[in-house]
Amino acid sequence: MGIGDDAAAWKPSRSHLSVITCDALIEDIHFTRAAFSFEEIGYRALASNLSDIAAMGAQPILATVALGIGPGISTNELLDLYRGIDSLARTSKTAIAGGDIVRTQKLMLTIAVVGEVRASNMKRRSGARNKDILAVTGPLGASRAGLDGDHSEEAHRKHRTPPPRLLEGRWLGGSQSVHAMMDLSDGLAMDVPRMARASGLAAIIEQVPVAQAARAMAGSRGNDPQHYVLEAGEDFELLVAVAPRAFTHLSQRFQKRFGRPLLQIGRVHEGSGVTVRKGDLLEPLQETGWDHLAQ
Amino acid sequence: MGIGDDAAAWKPSRSHLSVITCDALIEDIHFTRAAFSFEEIGYRALASNLSDIAAMGAQPILATVALGIGPGISTNELLDLYRGIDSLARTSKTAIAGGDIVRTQKLMLTIAVVGEVRASNMKRRSGARNKDILAVTGPLGASRAGLDGDHSEEAHRKHRTPPPRLLEGRWLGGSQSVHAMMDLSDGLAMDVPRMARASGLAAIIEQVPVAQAARAMAGSRGNDPQHYVLEAGEDFELLVAVAPRAFTHLSQRFQKRFGRPLLQIGRVHEGSGVTVRKGDLLEPLQETGWDHLAQ
Repeated sequence: MGIGDDAAAWKPSRSHLSVITCDALIEDIHFTRAAFSFEEIGYRALASNLSDIAAMGAQPILATVALGIGPGISTNELLDLYRGIDSLARTSKTAIAGGDIVRTQKLMLTIAVVGEVRASNMKRRSGARNKDILAVTGPLGASRAGLDGDHSEEAHRKHRTPPPRLLEGRWLGGSQSVHAMMDLSDGLAMDVPRMARASGLAAIIEQVPVAQAARAMAGSRGNDPQHYVLEAGEDFELLVAVAPRAFTHLSQRFQKRFGRPLLQIGRVHEGSGVTVRKGDLLEPLQETGWDHLAQ
Repeated sequence: MGIGDDAAAWKPSRSHLSVITCDALIEDIHFTRAAFSFEEIGYRALASNLSDIAAMGAQPILATVALGIGPGISTNELLDLYRGIDSLARTSKTAIAGGDIVRTQKLMLTIAVVGEVRASNMKRRSGARNKDILAVTGPLGASRAGLDGDHSEEAHRKHRTPPPRLLEGRWLGGSQSVHAMMDLSDGLAMDVPRMARASGLAAIIEQVPVAQAARAMAGSRGNDPQHYVLEAGEDFELLVAVAPRAFTHLSQRFQKRFGRPLLQIGRVHEGSGVTVRKGDLLEPLQETGWDHLAQ
């Protein structure tokens, strides 16, 4: 109903649940101005929230944007920032419903997004069942390769303007065979244990789908590609737990719908903890992903 | 549905509109750690959002809290901060539905609150009509007096733990005689012009209801109490535009319901701009309130 009032108003769908998520991005913690354009910073801030909406199987409705403006930011840079938010808001049909603007020492974007999902389509990370297959919506590690300096188009795009998997999330949300879903914001090494723990189960990672840019970057650094990707965050692909009998069919339908496969990475099973297959060996996973409060 | 997923979910009321508001509070811009306890900082951050919800005639449903933690904040201080948020969340029946926590240089709280309001009860600031009476839900200036060092209970409470006028907002929202409503966060000198402009009208401020603490503080400083209060923000009382014929009856009912009067401060009329009556003189209002982006 337009901006300018103390709050923005909208009419929620009668048949859906509402969902809300909120992420704060701070300069020099989550990004640097040297590494990203203002347009990219704006895009990424909204993208990380939309990825959470996608992970619930929901579609975004609106967003509020709280902007902290650091010193020395020009009007043009501010417009670029909004342009980045706005471009993704338009393509994802997310209304910008207001927000707040304050002076800060570091550039800060806190975005809250409200979405809607039919109750029967909503997925949680805690829904995985014993023997479910774990799969992801795309190869991983390209965003990290971009961070590490890979200039391929794949790495550039995934690092700078990662597409939130909204269509995939809603499609997967519509399948009863998908028991659990979450987005991969911190990397498999952090996020698979989260899903396993939330579901009260153990998991094994049997193969890691390595993006081409990640393979090249790991190779040039003499790193193991699998290890490189396990710790690589910000891919914003979706992680799902799928009923084993349904997986092949679901994967084929996914391929047909999105032009790329749903990639099996492992399984959940009874017990606790997460192991990783290395050739014939099973090694316990070391959780080494990104923890914002770690010193 | 609990925290721990990528987003929090709730079932919106079928008969209501949803509203959302978002405010960012930054250390040394909106508050200092020297002036407020952590509990007060948490309380005030939620209160300023709830005041916006009240101004729409809505009731709060849930909040997301994005917390930026500056250096040197202890776990106990963080718990105090949450305690401040939680105490007000409980009394106002606002569920804390998740959020984000990051490291920052300055303490930062960005809170988004979702509320609900029957469409017919929602008030906007643009709804004032020619000849409407302007009124406020309580005397003004006590918060500012507290900021300026007044130690009376009135000033202390309004400055440190200002009660958002949620019950008053919903009650006023239920009256068809109330044409426009907003909260007084920046003071009459900023907020009356906002309502007048949004409604395409002019306004005259004929009397300013001065809180006792504000009268004392203005007196001790040799300031004109009216002038002192015009510029005093953060009272979080509600400003309403009321049909002139209905005002006396509405004010009596308000008194009966809340034990204090609805205080007339002036009127809106055709034209533009805001004037203030000083004795027999009418002076144009100087907008001198708080602008966060002013240098």
